[in-house]
Amino acid sequence: MRRTELEHFNCSFARTLDILGDRWTLMIIRDAFYGISRFSDFQSRLGMARNILADRLEQLVTHNILVKVPTRPGVERFSYRLTERGKELYPALVAFCQWGDKWIFGCQGEPVRILDKKTGAPVQKVAVVSRDGRYLESQDITYAPGPGASAATMAIFEEVERKRREQQPS
Amino acid sequence: MRRTELEHFNCSFARTLDILGDRWTLMIIRDAFYGISRFSDFQSRLGMARNILADRLEQLVTHNILVKVPTRPGVERFSYRLTERGKELYPALVAFCQWGDKWIFGCQGEPVRILDKKTGAPVQKVAVVSRDGRYLESQDITYAPGPGASAATMAIFEEVERKRREQQPS
Repeated sequence: MRRTELEHFNCSFARTLDILGDRWTLMIIRDAFYGISRFSDFQSRLGMARNILADRLEQLVTHNILVKVPTRPGVERFSYRLTERGKELYPALVAFCQWGDKWIFGCQGEPVRILDKKTGAPVQKVAVVSRDGRYLESQDITYAPGPGASAATMAIFEEVERKRREQQPS
Repeated sequence: MRRTELEHFNCSFARTLDILGDRWTLMIIRDAFYGISRFSDFQSRLGMARNILADRLEQLVTHNILVKVPTRPGVERFSYRLTERGKELYPALVAFCQWGDKWIFGCQGEPVRILDKKTGAPVQKVAVVSRDGRYLESQDITYAPGPGASAATMAIFEEVERKRREQQPS
């Protein structure tokens, strides 16, 4: 399993990027959500070199984001399907897509609409929401060490807390 | 403004990756959400080479994700702050973080907890939600060309629709 320089971070975001933080990897996952499953279809849609596509697909299988299933028994052809682990990346991908809709293509300029299959209505904007249902911005959030915090992570939080106390009027 | 091979995609997700789809760029944005603003602090936290950090920061300023503000008038030192456009990336980052909490660090193993500042409670899981409040998975979604769809995007949707009709029993 290939690793990058983010492997040593005691951080879920960094470690997720360690697996996904490559433009082509994320584009393959995008297409898997569109229902693409065959090597040749990924290649023709994305216009990637075969060797790069093969490498990225292999990495995604290794990390259990995609699973390789034979198209028919006894035939040496495969399709790639999202695993449960892969499918749970969906909110992040929709959030990036909605950001691009607003900030790149602009109001009423989105190339693709993401619709609720049952009603045909556009989905809500993906958001960070409090337990009691308030929409939160980044400034409404605070962070604390979790049960998996390393000694280094704990030290960072203690340093931040120390600085905060120093800056308070006594 | 540097561009990558994703520039020509008529897709908000691809075009967002065109700006952000680099591990270090996303790590810089993560740290900006933690309140980091000085070059030296980004460098010591991320352990990046100075030239790569300078390049990525410059790209983020060019794309109006970060803004460079003088620390004091008349002094040649700057800090980097998230713009409104930058701040709206927050739900996508939290979604990746929560994915890593669950699928990399596992149950009760998250290094950092993301808390609602007002109540101290953990935030809800970032999700795709329908207009009428149902939680949607990727299989509950359908796609349609939007107002910004190119001729090529329209053709892809027509092709999918044609195949769908062919496969229906007559």
